[in-house]
Amino acid sequence: MTRADCDVIGIGNAIVDVLSQADDDFLAANGIEKGAMTLIDAARAEELYGRMGPGLEISGGSAANTMVGLASFGGRAAYIGKVRADQLGAVFAHDIRAAGVRFATAPTTTGAPTARCLILVTPDAQRSMSTFLGACVELGPEDVVEAEIAGAQVTYLEGYLWDPPQAKEAFRKAAGIAGRAGRKVALSLSDPFCVHRHRDEFLDLVAGPVDILFANEQEILALCGTSSFDDAVARLRAGKTLAVLTRGALGAVVVAADGVHAVPAAPVAAVVDTTGAGDLFAAGFLYGYTHGRPLPECAGLGARAAAEIIGHVGARPQVPLAELA
Amino acid sequence: MTRADCDVIGIGNAIVDVLSQADDDFLAANGIEKGAMTLIDAARAEELYGRMGPGLEISGGSAANTMVGLASFGGRAAYIGKVRADQLGAVFAHDIRAAGVRFATAPTTTGAPTARCLILVTPDAQRSMSTFLGACVELGPEDVVEAEIAGAQVTYLEGYLWDPPQAKEAFRKAAGIAGRAGRKVALSLSDPFCVHRHRDEFLDLVAGPVDILFANEQEILALCGTSSFDDAVARLRAGKTLAVLTRGALGAVVVAADGVHAVPAAPVAAVVDTTGAGDLFAAGFLYGYTHGRPLPECAGLGARAAAEIIGHVGARPQVPLAELA
Repeated sequence: MTRADCDVIGIGNAIVDVLSQADDDFLAANGIEKGAMTLIDAARAEELYGRMGPGLEISGGSAANTMVGLASFGGRAAYIGKVRADQLGAVFAHDIRAAGVRFATAPTTTGAPTARCLILVTPDAQRSMSTFLGACVELGPEDVVEAEIAGAQVTYLEGYLWDPPQAKEAFRKAAGIAGRAGRKVALSLSDPFCVHRHRDEFLDLVAGPVDILFANEQEILALCGTSSFDDAVARLRAGKTLAVLTRGALGAVVVAADGVHAVPAAPVAAVVDTTGAGDLFAAGFLYGYTHGRPLPECAGLGARAAAEIIGHVGARPQVPLAELA
Repeated sequence: MTRADCDVIGIGNAIVDVLSQADDDFLAANGIEKGAMTLIDAARAEELYGRMGPGLEISGGSAANTMVGLASFGGRAAYIGKVRADQLGAVFAHDIRAAGVRFATAPTTTGAPTARCLILVTPDAQRSMSTFLGACVELGPEDVVEAEIAGAQVTYLEGYLWDPPQAKEAFRKAAGIAGRAGRKVALSLSDPFCVHRHRDEFLDLVAGPVDILFANEQEILALCGTSSFDDAVARLRAGKTLAVLTRGALGAVVVAADGVHAVPAAPVAAVVDTTGAGDLFAAGFLYGYTHGRPLPECAGLGARAAAEIIGHVGARPQVPLAELA
C-alpha cells in the first residue's frame, strides 16, 4: 500500500443550504417533518421557498460539510459531488475549494439546477430540512476517480447517496476501490428517515465494506430495529465495524474492538442552529483517526467541532478548527 | 394631496452580498480600500472571488436594506431596483418580498447577471466592499412607476445610483414625481468615495429636490469639502434640508429647522459586522418620521436599528425591529 496523499475523500450530495427562521406553526401548516430531511421536487421547492421568510445561502451537503471541517482541522480532504454549472453551483465550488478541499468533479451543463436544501430553524435551534436534489441525480460511477479513492486513507460516504438513482453505484464503486487498495470505508447514516428508506441495504453495507459507521441515536435505533440504545450497542459489539454514535447533549459512544468508550459533549454557550452537528462531529473524529490519535481523543475532537457548529447559523465552521486540535 | 398608501419607496442598486472574513493583509495584497465601496468589473469580481475565503450569501443593496428595515418596524415599504432573471436575482426578489416589501420591478432577461457585492469583514468588524453592478446598469426611468412614487410619503434614493449610467435618470424622474405630488425626497450619500465621484451633482441635489439627507461623518465632510464636523453642521444649518448625520459610536446629529439634536448611539454587546449600519439607521429614522414621531425619537429608533444590525453578520435584521419601536 502506497502512502496516502489525502486523509479523507468524501462523496455526497453537493447542496447549497437556504437557511431561514420559522416557528413550529409554520412547519405544521406546511407539512414539514420536524428535525428530519425530506426530499422534495422542484415544484414543492418553489412553493415552499415562496412561503419561507428571508433566507441566507451557505454551501452545505453532509459529506461536504465534513470535508470542510476536516480541512479546517488541518487535514487533507477531497470531495466528489455534482453541481450544475450555474450561479449556486459556482458558489458551492468556490466555498469548498476556498476551504482547502480538493474538488474536481465536473459540473453538469444540462438538466436540473444545483441542489438546494431549504432549512427552517425553529427557536429551539432544531433544523428541519427539505431537499431538492437537482443536479445531484446526475452523480454516477464515472465521477469516481480511482486514483483519488485509492490515494485516500478513508473514503467517507453519506447515507443520503442512496436517494438519487445512480449515486449508490458511485458509492459501491468507491467502496470497492478503497477495499482493494487496503483503505478504510466510512459511512454516515445521515438521517433516521433515510435509514428507514434504505435499511436492508445499509445493514448489508455495515456487514460488508464499511469499516467505520457514524450515526446518531435515532439513526442507530432505526438501523438496529430496536428502541434500546444499549441493545443497539450490544449488537454493534458483536460485529467488526467501528461505530461512532452521537447522542447530542449526552455525548458520544465509540464501539470498538477493544471495548466501548463514552465521551461527554463539549460545552456550548448557546445552541443556535443544530444544522451540521453530526457532519462536524465526523470531521473531528476523522481528523483524529487519520492522525493516529486514540479513539476517545478522536471522539473528543468530534465533540468540540460539533459544539463550534451549533453555536452559530450554518454548517460550515466560522473559526479554524485546528485551534481545537 | 391624496393619502399615502406607502410610507417609503426606496430606489437603489439591487445586490446580493457575498460576505467573507479576511484580515488586513488580504485587503492590502488585493488592493482593497478598507471601509469603502469600490466598483469592480466582471473580470475583477471573478478574480477577487477566487481568492476570497468561503462566503455567505445574503440579499443586500443599501436602499433595499433600508426598506427591509422599515418593513421590519411595521412600516409600509416598496422598492425599485434591477436584477436579472437568474438564481441570485430570484434570491434577491424572494428575500425582499418575504420581508414584506413591495417589489415589482421587472428583471432583465439579457445582459449581465444580478449584481453582487464582495464584502470582506475584518476582525475589527469593519467591512470593505467590492461591487460588481451587473444587471443594475439596466435600471432606467422606465422602471419608475409614477403611481408608486406619488403614493409614498417619502421617496428614498441611494447615492450609489449615480454610478450606473441610466439610474440617475430614474432618480431624477422619481424626485420630480415626488416633488409634484407634494411628497418628500430623501437621499443617502452612501459612501465617501461615491461623494467624491459625484460631489457637484450631490450638492445640486441637496440645494434642490432633496428634503432629507442621510450621511455619516466621512460622507458629510466630503460633501461639504471640510475636515471639521462642526463646520459641516454650520453649513447645513444655513440650508433648508433636514440632515441626519451618523457618527458611529459617537451617536447621531439631526440638523433641522428648529435646531440641532444630538442622540447617543445605542448599546451593542459586541460589534461583529458593520455592514448596513447606515442603511438600518435610515430605516429607523424614516419609520419614526413617517409616523409623526419627534426628530430625536426618530434618530433614537435609527440608533437602535443600527445597533441590531452590527451585532451580527449581514445587513438584514434578524429580529423584528417593531420590538424596538
